[in-house]
Amino acid sequence: MTRSAGRPRDPSVDARVIKAALDAINEEGMAGLSIDAIAARAGVSKATIYRRWSSKDELVVDAIASLSGVVGAVTTGDVRTDLVAVVSDLRRFFCDTTAGEVFPWLAGEIASQSALGLRYGAAVMVPKRALVAGIISDGIERGDLRPDIDVATVVDLIIGPVIARRLMGNLANSPESWPDDLIDSLLIGWSA
Amino acid sequence: MTRSAGRPRDPSVDARVIKAALDAINEEGMAGLSIDAIAARAGVSKATIYRRWSSKDELVVDAIASLSGVVGAVTTGDVRTDLVAVVSDLRRFFCDTTAGEVFPWLAGEIASQSALGLRYGAAVMVPKRALVAGIISDGIERGDLRPDIDVATVVDLIIGPVIARRLMGNLANSPESWPDDLIDSLLIGWSA
Repeated sequence: MTRSAGRPRDPSVDARVIKAALDAINEEGMAGLSIDAIAARAGVSKATIYRRWSSKDELVVDAIASLSGVVGAVTTGDVRTDLVAVVSDLRRFFCDTTAGEVFPWLAGEIASQSALGLRYGAAVMVPKRALVAGIISDGIERGDLRPDIDVATVVDLIIGPVIARRLMGNLANSPESWPDDLIDSLLIGWSA
Repeated sequence: MTRSAGRPRDPSVDARVIKAALDAINEEGMAGLSIDAIAARAGVSKATIYRRWSSKDELVVDAIASLSGVVGAVTTGDVRTDLVAVVSDLRRFFCDTTAGEVFPWLAGEIASQSALGLRYGAAVMVPKRALVAGIISDGIERGDLRPDIDVATVVDLIIGPVIARRLMGNLANSPESWPDDLIDSLLIGWSA
């Protein structure tokens, strides 16, 4: 136990554990996921994982959150371009990454506002809402969007349909042009 | 067994069983719900219930679907009024009825597109999408809405935010004026 006392934590271990968790979910699904299997894949001890995460579920949420960085990674300053990109990125995040794989399992946690669901909301959804709010606010400030639109409501209108479609199972099969259609249907009225 | 053969089914039994299921969920929650308890409340035998529903879960979905009739029960022919009413009704359905109680449990079923989730979608969500699509189509036909809006996308924009907020747990505490704000944010651009 004294072996590692005072030794600086190796940040690459976090990344290795998170990658191992994502690989394990992809290859084995959530049902059979275990800290043992993740530890073996990452080449670390279970104790190393438990020093960083108090449970397997917490680790999974952080692993998913690590994938959500793709959403809004690039912004151009053009409102339409940036909003379409966010919706496209969110669709990709929910359909083509491990985030989609775990969503059915997480949906119940999110809906019941469990500690895990709140952790997911804080790690994934709150930053995405802030990202969209920023794009809208900047657009208003530049005079590209009407000054009288309510930012919080607009954020609901942009992110809501993506989440609802993922929940109802018709996001992956939405038309290729769906992100453009969605934003255009909104901007018709918002452009100054 | 031959006792009831050929005897016409009493429709009031269905209603009594559904009411008993809703009462049981409200008073005892989903966790401890049993066909035994529902049968006792309804004053019918378990066999009577199983002749109508193949499982407890199916009965719960039908019970929730029976509550969703409140949504869009009244339409006036005025687009703004009717859309605000649908959003308000959906908020009430998801927050103030037993539908809200079972939503966290159902969310996982819906997201995983299980047989039960699909049953809920078909019984509750598909009719509500059709209702909103009808309001929009009628509005276009009357010349109250732009003819170039895409009805399916508009339906996403109206229903999506409600479902997403219910999932994320911030529907019940949305501002009183939220349904109006949502529809106004949309109509700014859609009115002809």
